[in-house]
Amino acid sequence: MSRIDGRTPEQLRPVTIERGWSKHAEGSVLVSFGDTKVLCTASVTEGVPRWRKGSGEGWVTAEYSMLPRATNTRGDRESVKGRIGGRTHEISRLIGRSLRAVIDYKALGENTIVLDCDVLQADGGTRTAAITGAYVALADAVAWAQAKKIVRAGRRPLTGTVAAVSVGIVGGVPMLDLCYEEDVRAETDMNVVCTGDGRFVEVQGTAEAQPFAREELDALLALAVGGCTELAGHQRAALDTVLEK
Amino acid sequence: MSRIDGRTPEQLRPVTIERGWSKHAEGSVLVSFGDTKVLCTASVTEGVPRWRKGSGEGWVTAEYSMLPRATNTRGDRESVKGRIGGRTHEISRLIGRSLRAVIDYKALGENTIVLDCDVLQADGGTRTAAITGAYVALADAVAWAQAKKIVRAGRRPLTGTVAAVSVGIVGGVPMLDLCYEEDVRAETDMNVVCTGDGRFVEVQGTAEAQPFAREELDALLALAVGGCTELAGHQRAALDTVLEK
Amino acid sequence: MSRIDGRTPEQLRPVTIERGWSKHAEGSVLVSFGDTKVLCTASVTEGVPRWRKGSGEGWVTAEYSMLPRATNTRGDRESVKGRIGGRTHEISRLIGRSLRAVIDYKALGENTIVLDCDVLQADGGTRTAAITGAYVALADAVAWAQAKKIVRAGRRPLTGTVAAVSVGIVGGVPMLDLCYEEDVRAETDMNVVCTGDGRFVEVQGTAEAQPFAREELDALLALAVGGCTELAGHQRAALDTVLEK
Amino acid sequence: MSRIDGRTPEQLRPVTIERGWSKHAEGSVLVSFGDTKVLCTASVTEGVPRWRKGSGEGWVTAEYSMLPRATNTRGDRESVKGRIGGRTHEISRLIGRSLRAVIDYKALGENTIVLDCDVLQADGGTRTAAITGAYVALADAVAWAQAKKIVRAGRRPLTGTVAAVSVGIVGGVPMLDLCYEEDVRAETDMNVVCTGDGRFVEVQGTAEAQPFAREELDALLALAVGGCTELAGHQRAALDTVLEK
Amino acid sequence: MSRIDGRTPEQLRPVTIERGWSKHAEGSVLVSFGDTKVLCTASVTEGVPRWRKGSGEGWVTAEYSMLPRATNTRGDRESVKGRIGGRTHEISRLIGRSLRAVIDYKALGENTIVLDCDVLQADGGTRTAAITGAYVALADAVAWAQAKKIVRAGRRPLTGTVAAVSVGIVGGVPMLDLCYEEDVRAETDMNVVCTGDGRFVEVQGTAEAQPFAREELDALLALAVGGCTELAGHQRAALDTVLEK
Amino acid sequence: MSRIDGRTPEQLRPVTIERGWSKHAEGSVLVSFGDTKVLCTASVTEGVPRWRKGSGEGWVTAEYSMLPRATNTRGDRESVKGRIGGRTHEISRLIGRSLRAVIDYKALGENTIVLDCDVLQADGGTRTAAITGAYVALADAVAWAQAKKIVRAGRRPLTGTVAAVSVGIVGGVPMLDLCYEEDVRAETDMNVVCTGDGRFVEVQGTAEAQPFAREELDALLALAVGGCTELAGHQRAALDTVLEK
Repeated sequence: MSRIDGRTPEQLRPVTIERGWSKHAEGSVLVSFGDTKVLCTASVTEGVPRWRKGSGEGWVTAEYSMLPRATNTRGDRESVKGRIGGRTHEISRLIGRSLRAVIDYKALGENTIVLDCDVLQADGGTRTAAITGAYVALADAVAWAQAKKIVRAGRRPLTGTVAAVSVGIVGGVPMLDLCYEEDVRAETDMNVVCTGDGRFVEVQGTAEAQPFAREELDALLALAVGGCTELAGHQRAALDTVLEK
Repeated sequence: MSRIDGRTPEQLRPVTIERGWSKHAEGSVLVSFGDTKVLCTASVTEGVPRWRKGSGEGWVTAEYSMLPRATNTRGDRESVKGRIGGRTHEISRLIGRSLRAVIDYKALGENTIVLDCDVLQADGGTRTAAITGAYVALADAVAWAQAKKIVRAGRRPLTGTVAAVSVGIVGGVPMLDLCYEEDVRAETDMNVVCTGDGRFVEVQGTAEAQPFAREELDALLALAVGGCTELAGHQRAALDTVLEK
Repeated sequence: MSRIDGRTPEQLRPVTIERGWSKHAEGSVLVSFGDTKVLCTASVTEGVPRWRKGSGEGWVTAEYSMLPRATNTRGDRESVKGRIGGRTHEISRLIGRSLRAVIDYKALGENTIVLDCDVLQADGGTRTAAITGAYVALADAVAWAQAKKIVRAGRRPLTGTVAAVSVGIVGGVPMLDLCYEEDVRAETDMNVVCTGDGRFVEVQGTAEAQPFAREELDALLALAVGGCTELAGHQRAALDTVLEK
Repeated sequence: MSRIDGRTPEQLRPVTIERGWSKHAEGSVLVSFGDTKVLCTASVTEGVPRWRKGSGEGWVTAEYSMLPRATNTRGDRESVKGRIGGRTHEISRLIGRSLRAVIDYKALGENTIVLDCDVLQADGGTRTAAITGAYVALADAVAWAQAKKIVRAGRRPLTGTVAAVSVGIVGGVPMLDLCYEEDVRAETDMNVVCTGDGRFVEVQGTAEAQPFAREELDALLALAVGGCTELAGHQRAALDTVLEK
Repeated sequence: MSRIDGRTPEQLRPVTIERGWSKHAEGSVLVSFGDTKVLCTASVTEGVPRWRKGSGEGWVTAEYSMLPRATNTRGDRESVKGRIGGRTHEISRLIGRSLRAVIDYKALGENTIVLDCDVLQADGGTRTAAITGAYVALADAVAWAQAKKIVRAGRRPLTGTVAAVSVGIVGGVPMLDLCYEEDVRAETDMNVVCTGDGRFVEVQGTAEAQPFAREELDALLALAVGGCTELAGHQRAALDTVLEK
Repeated sequence: MSRIDGRTPEQLRPVTIERGWSKHAEGSVLVSFGDTKVLCTASVTEGVPRWRKGSGEGWVTAEYSMLPRATNTRGDRESVKGRIGGRTHEISRLIGRSLRAVIDYKALGENTIVLDCDVLQADGGTRTAAITGAYVALADAVAWAQAKKIVRAGRRPLTGTVAAVSVGIVGGVPMLDLCYEEDVRAETDMNVVCTGDGRFVEVQGTAEAQPFAREELDALLALAVGGCTELAGHQRAALDTVLEK
């Protein structure tokens, strides 16, 4: 059985992870999952938000946004509307939590890293591409902070790697990494965030059309773990490259 | 092994569902899960939002909010801050999706039901109490609309029942229906929304302290399904009572 | 001549004042004037707003709000609209001023008490019920602060008691404590805030249909003073009860 | 006993009412009560707000604002802060209600008149000057609408005249028309809006320092009625002048 | 060839500069260019915005606004809309930059001067009238600060004078100081800010109907320099008058 | 005399114009002026804003924004702050006006084209790059609308071409197309928008350090016209390429 774009159910779309995309940011990645393209930048600042001062611990947070014409029809800018929508809030929080799962705050010291994930083009899976790319930008930013001695010598702020993928049941078939057209038709939709060693950081499953049974959940989880493992390989490959800057 | 409040790991807190709490709303419930108290009102209006007009289909949506002093320390009002926070947005969306999972839009006709879930007192599990109570308020509102012939005779807008519960791993032990103190100490935290027949509507698991393994996920899901089944019984019992108004 | 609900013109609706409603707040009261129900919580924090720092004086302020379905038809949430309406602003300010009239700032010391008055169900007179209930919550909060030594020994921050009631001319007859249906039909509407010893803190009279004469004003003031005196009795009775917490 | 500026307790400050101040507005008045100067413009538009359409009745509303440096120290602009403060809201509503008290909506027809009252310089009594001046601007706007046949021939939208004045107890002495310095020191502060025939439209008394007794209230009301009568004379004189435009 | 109001193309409208208009502000001017009237106040505060603290340098900024009925049809208040419009932002920034061009920050010391320019009546050229009037208010505020020793003796914060005028091509003819009716019909519109010695501070030319050629630009610049020179004369004359306050 | 990056004073930075960057937008261009990169998308929608309905004329507007880390230090998102800053407003308006200068509204018919210009990386000249790139995206969108028969056959909505460049005086030397480092040090800064035939659409010159003389203005205008002519060549070359989509 083949999918809209000819993939098998358990196949990812082509993945690219382009490091060093921006000359300003301490870490920056243009990640693509098929036609979904997200620019992820990591900004390091010394100091932490007020509520964390004096704790000796750092902070990592994220902001997600879509350009107005990243999608098929133009959306209004949230800056013009004067308020952030619920979906944006929800995804920003998800990305932040996912990355914090692999951060050792003590090792980071009182420094803050902000991940900005701006969707330049959307075709489904923007939040999972954002998490996957943001991890690489974060790794570069941490390395930069270590090189600059902002993070103390010997400290390892990253405790693992993290990647994310969407899975869903479309026409009764569990599938990996849904493109937009599949996502719209999915009966059940799930976003799964895993560490490189196959444990779960976030599991968010939603019945779109009708409630789903335990076996369906199991099938989706298996697909997702496989997809995240493959993405972890892409991340490793990208980070193994020597980045000239 | 006993919990802070003496419960066993698989035990719910005392649950009360008080129907007909408000004289104005078409459905209204004061639900409590232990010390967590949420006032859920359902408001029926004829007509639907603009994007749905002429579809012949109805709409159900929800808004969640906390009174400023529902919690241990007073929080600023979102109306005074002039913006809704990310957490509020996220929970409002979750409640709405959960209830829509048991609605047949065609049968509802072009009518809208808004569920307002206001937390009067918080002690963990406010979103799951809200979903559980809101379902009962929704059922009352649907019955009201049927009695008023706003919903056409013979139509059954509700396709099932829905309830929700939190589960988490605290001190290595999977536990059902966390109170605030447990929630704060949980290594993993999950909110599960199930239909009365034991299928999943939403599964949202988050690693708070460290990533969780598949077996932990399985243990939590089993606990949650059991809890939701028990809550479905409380809902049935409440709805079986004759409500004098 | 009897009223919609059978009362005489100079009769209050049934009044209940339920102290200790919330487990978190330093003072909390669920007050009802007939079908009007307001949850009043008092939150004590050490310190004062910036403009008052170093003065040795405390501060008391209030925020009033209505749940969306407290009324007969659902109102939009002010948090969702992103701005507080004029009516909300006006009533919040009135409650704050009324309570400050019986506060000795010096005796309170540099502490702040915030009164949150959330209308759970509305049937006219929400602002006067809020003031009457908030006074009792305030008294409990002050007692708590004295017990915790946050207020210095021997100091008495409360200089008196305060209660409020609405009066109006309906069908040419001056009446006490209008319910919603009477309020809508009133030619003149007045809210009066009095101390326990019968002096005035606030007098706000408005000609709804046509200007009113001095004799009408006099009749309304007399009714209001009587009502406030009666409410002061209810407050005393509530505060005389031993509160188990 | 003489006051800061040499007046007797029952004396108004010098009052000027300059009609036709603006070349654009249908009615415009620069009113001054001593050093308080308010520019009042009345704007007529055909049609009414949506909630009033088809009623055959008109609408009158008001907006009050202060220039940032109308006062002794500069205040932040509410447009820059992005929200209207409570005081502004409260006064705008008061002005609107006061003017509507002398409007016959039916006679006005489905037309709207907006009164903008912008305080150019403040020295106490800005709201009462605003009401007094706005009435004159409103009268000019109504006359304009009649001349333009926007209001039907023979209809008289104005049912009377309205003026306002502040009164207060300063150093134990009831005084009329407080300037800023007196207002700050007042123990009790009251704003009274009267029709030209001496009946009340609004009475808003506030205990600033300590609760006030019935006799004090009576003394203040008497002063206020006298002041409003005198202001009605100023309004009449201004309107009797032929305005060249 | 004569203009709508009988002027020659190179003629300014009647200019008046009334100093000391407000009793509160450190400098205040009511400036008129024909029927355009702008109230400019200068407010001096000791200290500077946070980003400038410790620099030893002062700051000058401006805020521009229009009263709702300054124009022919009433505009909504930006405070009510909750946001500043693009035009307001743009003009506020222009006024601020123009005045800062003649300020020696070091000589001013760590003090801030805010210029508020509120348009009371608009008939074209409001931003140029605002700059021209604000300069005079600024000069008075600087003199006040020198007299009060807030600016150190011997320091001269003002390094020159600044004035502004609009020019445009209307019906093919370059014209100085456009009134509203001319402005609407202009093919090209330019605002020019000059120092008293004829150099440029700002040049903002816009093709309204069709692009303009270099010769047209040259003609407009020549007209504008002449107009600014004449305005500088009006400023000098106003400042030479002895101001009784 | 050579510049920071080795250019001569009258030399542009390397310019690239990459058409068809986005799969969704009707026109899309990634434009770069050196390290400044702006993504410009053109979105066509049938219909026009309300105030233009029934006129038979179209509308073109623009929105400019910067990604938070487009610059050397991270800026707060305007969507998070809840308001658009003055600079953003000003540039959005400039881009819109510039493009409208080459649009024949009648020929466009009642259709709207929105240009979104999002700065992905900033190094000076972001507004001029945005205008230059947006013109090309606009041309593609117009061609698309013609192909789709949304614009009537035979109509030519574009009346010319438009490009923009910055010029400035740095260290006394007039220079073309300033990079960020030069821009910061410029004594005078000017943005010039020209049509392809060398006429002016916008001229915005600002004295940053000190007022500038007429000869300096002339030198800058000459440089700018040369730069715009060269950019018009780049635009033509880009549009002459066959775009595969």
